[in-house]
Amino acid sequence: MNQSTDTTTAQARNDDAVGRYLTVRAATEALARPLSAEDCCVQSMPDASPAKWHLAHTSWFFETFILERHEQGFCAFDAAFRVLFNSYYQGVGRQHPRPQRGLLTRPSLATVLAYRADVDARMLRLLQQDGLPEPIWSLLELGLQHEQQHQELLLTDIKHLLWCNPLWPAYRDAPAVADSEAAAPSDWQPFEGGLVQTGHAGAGFAFDNELPRHSVFLQPYALATRPVTNAEYLAFMADGGYANPAHWLAEGWDWCRSQQITHPLYWRQEEAGWQEFTLAGGRPLVPRQPVVHLSYYEADAYARWAGARLPTEAEWEAAAGQADSQGHFADSGLFQPLPERQQGAGLRQMFGDVWEWTQSSYAPYPGFVTAPGAVGEYNGKFMINQYVLRGGSCATPAGHVRASYRNFFPAAARWQFTGVRLARDMR
Amino acid sequence: MNQSTDTTTAQARNDDAVGRYLTVRAATEALARPLSAEDCCVQSMPDASPAKWHLAHTSWFFETFILERHEQGFCAFDAAFRVLFNSYYQGVGRQHPRPQRGLLTRPSLATVLAYRADVDARMLRLLQQDGLPEPIWSLLELGLQHEQQHQELLLTDIKHLLWCNPLWPAYRDAPAVADSEAAAPSDWQPFEGGLVQTGHAGAGFAFDNELPRHSVFLQPYALATRPVTNAEYLAFMADGGYANPAHWLAEGWDWCRSQQITHPLYWRQEEAGWQEFTLAGGRPLVPRQPVVHLSYYEADAYARWAGARLPTEAEWEAAAGQADSQGHFADSGLFQPLPERQQGAGLRQMFGDVWEWTQSSYAPYPGFVTAPGAVGEYNGKFMINQYVLRGGSCATPAGHVRASYRNFFPAAARWQFTGVRLARDMR
Amino acid sequence: MNQSTDTTTAQARNDDAVGRYLTVRAATEALARPLSAEDCCVQSMPDASPAKWHLAHTSWFFETFILERHEQGFCAFDAAFRVLFNSYYQGVGRQHPRPQRGLLTRPSLATVLAYRADVDARMLRLLQQDGLPEPIWSLLELGLQHEQQHQELLLTDIKHLLWCNPLWPAYRDAPAVADSEAAAPSDWQPFEGGLVQTGHAGAGFAFDNELPRHSVFLQPYALATRPVTNAEYLAFMADGGYANPAHWLAEGWDWCRSQQITHPLYWRQEEAGWQEFTLAGGRPLVPRQPVVHLSYYEADAYARWAGARLPTEAEWEAAAGQADSQGHFADSGLFQPLPERQQGAGLRQMFGDVWEWTQSSYAPYPGFVTAPGAVGEYNGKFMINQYVLRGGSCATPAGHVRASYRNFFPAAARWQFTGVRLARDMR
Amino acid sequence: MNQSTDTTTAQARNDDAVGRYLTVRAATEALARPLSAEDCCVQSMPDASPAKWHLAHTSWFFETFILERHEQGFCAFDAAFRVLFNSYYQGVGRQHPRPQRGLLTRPSLATVLAYRADVDARMLRLLQQDGLPEPIWSLLELGLQHEQQHQELLLTDIKHLLWCNPLWPAYRDAPAVADSEAAAPSDWQPFEGGLVQTGHAGAGFAFDNELPRHSVFLQPYALATRPVTNAEYLAFMADGGYANPAHWLAEGWDWCRSQQITHPLYWRQEEAGWQEFTLAGGRPLVPRQPVVHLSYYEADAYARWAGARLPTEAEWEAAAGQADSQGHFADSGLFQPLPERQQGAGLRQMFGDVWEWTQSSYAPYPGFVTAPGAVGEYNGKFMINQYVLRGGSCATPAGHVRASYRNFFPAAARWQFTGVRLARDMR
Repeated sequence: MNQSTDTTTAQARNDDAVGRYLTVRAATEALARPLSAEDCCVQSMPDASPAKWHLAHTSWFFETFILERHEQGFCAFDAAFRVLFNSYYQGVGRQHPRPQRGLLTRPSLATVLAYRADVDARMLRLLQQDGLPEPIWSLLELGLQHEQQHQELLLTDIKHLLWCNPLWPAYRDAPAVADSEAAAPSDWQPFEGGLVQTGHAGAGFAFDNELPRHSVFLQPYALATRPVTNAEYLAFMADGGYANPAHWLAEGWDWCRSQQITHPLYWRQEEAGWQEFTLAGGRPLVPRQPVVHLSYYEADAYARWAGARLPTEAEWEAAAGQADSQGHFADSGLFQPLPERQQGAGLRQMFGDVWEWTQSSYAPYPGFVTAPGAVGEYNGKFMINQYVLRGGSCATPAGHVRASYRNFFPAAARWQFTGVRLARDMR
Repeated sequence: MNQSTDTTTAQARNDDAVGRYLTVRAATEALARPLSAEDCCVQSMPDASPAKWHLAHTSWFFETFILERHEQGFCAFDAAFRVLFNSYYQGVGRQHPRPQRGLLTRPSLATVLAYRADVDARMLRLLQQDGLPEPIWSLLELGLQHEQQHQELLLTDIKHLLWCNPLWPAYRDAPAVADSEAAAPSDWQPFEGGLVQTGHAGAGFAFDNELPRHSVFLQPYALATRPVTNAEYLAFMADGGYANPAHWLAEGWDWCRSQQITHPLYWRQEEAGWQEFTLAGGRPLVPRQPVVHLSYYEADAYARWAGARLPTEAEWEAAAGQADSQGHFADSGLFQPLPERQQGAGLRQMFGDVWEWTQSSYAPYPGFVTAPGAVGEYNGKFMINQYVLRGGSCATPAGHVRASYRNFFPAAARWQFTGVRLARDMR
Repeated sequence: MNQSTDTTTAQARNDDAVGRYLTVRAATEALARPLSAEDCCVQSMPDASPAKWHLAHTSWFFETFILERHEQGFCAFDAAFRVLFNSYYQGVGRQHPRPQRGLLTRPSLATVLAYRADVDARMLRLLQQDGLPEPIWSLLELGLQHEQQHQELLLTDIKHLLWCNPLWPAYRDAPAVADSEAAAPSDWQPFEGGLVQTGHAGAGFAFDNELPRHSVFLQPYALATRPVTNAEYLAFMADGGYANPAHWLAEGWDWCRSQQITHPLYWRQEEAGWQEFTLAGGRPLVPRQPVVHLSYYEADAYARWAGARLPTEAEWEAAAGQADSQGHFADSGLFQPLPERQQGAGLRQMFGDVWEWTQSSYAPYPGFVTAPGAVGEYNGKFMINQYVLRGGSCATPAGHVRASYRNFFPAAARWQFTGVRLARDMR
Repeated sequence: MNQSTDTTTAQARNDDAVGRYLTVRAATEALARPLSAEDCCVQSMPDASPAKWHLAHTSWFFETFILERHEQGFCAFDAAFRVLFNSYYQGVGRQHPRPQRGLLTRPSLATVLAYRADVDARMLRLLQQDGLPEPIWSLLELGLQHEQQHQELLLTDIKHLLWCNPLWPAYRDAPAVADSEAAAPSDWQPFEGGLVQTGHAGAGFAFDNELPRHSVFLQPYALATRPVTNAEYLAFMADGGYANPAHWLAEGWDWCRSQQITHPLYWRQEEAGWQEFTLAGGRPLVPRQPVVHLSYYEADAYARWAGARLPTEAEWEAAAGQADSQGHFADSGLFQPLPERQQGAGLRQMFGDVWEWTQSSYAPYPGFVTAPGAVGEYNGKFMINQYVLRGGSCATPAGHVRASYRNFFPAAARWQFTGVRLARDMR
């Protein structure tokens, strides 16, 4: 390959990177646009972060892991931000305490947006240089994937905040979701099992926790053709599901009792029937919509009540290879799971709509290694007391997930768009 | 008295009331002006409230206790505010939970300011009517006194919030407080005691908790001529004051240990010496400034260490009758206690600068009766496990306090401008 | 006075002291006798202590404050006990943490009884010596009064422990308390008030907190002629007393809600009606028995509901001077308050039966001074956030209390034998 | 087979059962024998139970699951025990709250021993009957295995209780453990991996959680030939292991900080060096003894620091099939892990000495089914947020564990005899 081709290729890569960078960054800001400075500042619980913090932290990621190392004459936008907007990277130094992120009325939203603009300008300048060292490109991609993850968190965190307000204000108006009366009933899709490969394969981006690809042996199993719906979950409730310890893990039962849990998060019973808080405000519950905002405990109890179980992540992934990877993601702007729209055979809604709890504890794959340095803290150090979710949701950016993608949350978490698809053994 | 004189007098009362109403309301808004919408929204701890909440709640008071009863064709600005901005009046119905006041990003600050303007317009219309029933005038005065109390709370709450921010941002810049090297040392001012009258007397406004005026018998005592200073408090610290249980109440000692308290709130030791967070940001500690932001426990421990004690509220009040009621209040705009400025004999700085802890538990005066209805909840129901403070502070509106004025906080509270004046028995 | 008279007098004092010492010590052991080693070991809550701890700590008091200073060739029974059985005397050194007193299965009850016997033998040897220094006699009396206080605590603590057991086992059987249908209704006994003397007078023993005697000015007032009964308290409950915030201090209302309090401690509603746990096991509630095991919050709420208030401690003490100091104390062995037995005029049951909550915060009397050294920690350091109770109870040793005696507990405490006598202003 | 042979066989089975029953039951009582009634009554933390409760609960198991169903004219020893000594079987009805087990001073230890004797007499009577229905035999075996598990818990719980006592009293004296200077260094034993069978096989007893046996695919790996020793763990500590977040899971790091953990449970640094609390009292740390009383967090952090990892349970089980199943169990009466005694090749100390943390979350095996009825609650409902431990310990009854045995505890648990064996990938 001669020099000019080389230059052309490199130039094309730079141009692609710039384009993708601008697209992802703009998407974050678009999500924040319906919010006031007040909305962006407040933190509703320790698990959630203010929108302003998401806007700043995603910029901090590029400034800390790319600009600080590769920009000539690097000078931080504001030296204090290194601590304020560090999430959990011990290798980068101290962090502002997570439960106090909402106390940062300064810097203002305007300053944080200026910070974003400054980081963007510097990143674009850098990305147009020739001969950038190779690690930049993987860090850039990691930064963009990271920003997409925070786009989803921004939505789930703002949903929680607005729900805490007794006025149930809307983030953004949206048309009502129509029920789909003609949708097919759920069925079982069988799989043979045996020795399957699991984990990321191929050239595209994947997080370190999806690697290495490796063999797993599965017994024969079946998955439900679609996620559990609100109507089905209401049947569990009507059957006293929340009052019968036989359906529950011991820890789940204690959680129900001590937190007085009797329905999914964001539901409220009114005279007119069950209402659900959505990012478009309160709405009547839609029967065929996938049930969402369940804890692992609730997902597991429902499955037991239904005579089934949760899938393992390897079962899910082996099945997902045969499913349509299209789905209902955040690009619809609806931010609500939708009732099943098609009637076809096989697995449906594996991707998008709701994250599906698996029974798999979040653990390293055999041979897992973390990256050296602080980015090595990205995933590995959370591999304890969390459970894997698969498939993405209606709040996940389109194109962000894949069959091998592993999301993870503690068993009690409910503020993500989490639902359930049943599995069972085939004997 | 003929009719026209009568009308003139009534008209003058209306005009006075309007003037005073406008002045107090404007003062609240002036205090909020240096703050952004973000600053106004956030709550830093359950004891504190957001500035926006103070702005709304003080308007709610007029809307609920005056307009709702006396305005023709009353229609609430927003029906939801009746719950959202009710502080603790059970007689008015439900309240938004106190620890969640900071989650109300909606209504926005702009809406709350519009609420204020609307209440103001309606109040002015009402106050210009003839023949208003008598109770309006006392409720109006109560509402204005109430609003002045919230002016001070707005300042102390915003100070706490900004202090939580590691950047120690300033609420408003202010000139540095100069030390006053020529100030007189503290001395003892003796009082005979005997049967004294305590409680409010005369025609001016007083809260129900200052009544009825009654006799109290005092032993001979002395008060320090001025409050304890930073320099004096540093001597206590240098002598191991925080590490010696002999100085402390048992509960205070446990509080120190469990909270790891080793200095007053808002202090921080740096290489250059002790810094103090003020509403103008971090400042070096000023030696002759009255020490401020002490808990009752610390005030009491200091007094014990100094071979003295805290005054009772009756001792304080009997002495205050002979003291200059001028002092350094919030109208200076400094919001920091000042070193003693004058050299004169007798008690100094009894009013303003710092609230002075007394050893008196907050209790009803003999014969105390509360007003009928919800306003009767104003004071009486807090008469338990709180201690009385006297004299007002540099954050108290000028003209708001008097010798009989009783402020009260739990023994562990430190975020008010609380200091200490010593007392001792005369034998 | 000649030498031999002197000797005779001193000898008589020694003999009296020995007699009194033996009586008080034996009374403690008699109270522990119905209990097994297991009963004596367990601590049911941080506020309570195991019976074994009471047995040991009261001995520790004599060993530490008398033997260690005055015994020739002092050698501790077990050096570890100095820490294990120190309650809260910082001046004596470290203390075993209060909430962990129940973890001390060693030393065994048998060892603790041997410790008692050893201390007794050494004390008797000491007390028979000539020429003992004067401070011994006041420390001896303090130690015996202290032991009597722990006799009452032993009973209240064991009552709480046995109540925690779902079997409601009896400490000791006792005959049922008969209701007294002929008892007089409650009436008001008026007092003029004015300048009265309060605090201990005369030569007998008193705690430091009863001193100095001093003048207090009282407004005219009246006290109820007897404590509130179960029947009267049930009327408050039937009227929705626990559900109406208008009766409650704000803090009391929060306490009720968060603790889900709907009746006095130790009550339980069964099909057959209200049952009360007593030291003789579960018993049907006796209507004319004084209501007992109330918190300050409940006592205060009841009083407000009844259109009355709690007395101040000075009001109580001034009235008690005219009352019969005989009453129903622990020597009856019933450990339950009794319905009023007599029909006479004036105040009844001022002493014994139930401790009566006053509205007075526990505070130092004017001129209060503590003893030097560690015994100075006996009372003074608890003068914060506690309320004074007067009159003794059916679990108080006969002869232990007097009109000036000040007991004190936090407002939420209910496991003592605490009741209520109403007061009101006379206009 | 003729009738008499049949009868003989059945008779032999009955006799064997009786023998085994008596042996196991006597072993429990032998463990309680060094304890006083006080020792047996107290509960040192919610995770632990009193020895008396263990004695009673294991009898409750036989009474509830066997006698209540199969004894003619069943009459409970005490009807209240059904609730008092039910651990967590919702299917049997209510349970006395776990954290309050230590408040049960009644029934006394003597009564509980009488309860045991009564259950034993009735069980023996039952077991000598002809023609017992088949389920009795598996329930009997389950009850005995259950009792053995409680034998170990009795020891670990009493160790925790005695350790809470500042006197560090001994449960039972024992000779000092000698260090073994000649022991071999740790080495790596490689395993090929591939498709292996895991789970219980064969006719002997196994818990439901060990079933069904199934295939698992393993990558090549190696296990350390012996557990990590105190000396090795001290090297981790000396290298700042507890102060460097790079070694820790995020949750483990937070646990260390908030609990101020800087060494294994039961260690204490004294002038003479590290002391360890054992069931024989305080002892100097023995360098070559396996380190014990580690949390999962500590085991994992150590492994990371050592450049290794924890094994999975499948790796451990596949390797254990080739290891000597003899080991140092509770029958030695030492209740302390011992330094390695032999020099041979291959894996050593796989069984006994210390439970070995695996990185495997406790989860159902593919095809796992629980027994019908309340005994189905035995294992399955705990399969969440716990990690599997393998191999048994010096407090496990000899003969109780096997290669497929799965113990499980939360990641923060340290009061069991838990240690660590390293694993690593083979590439």
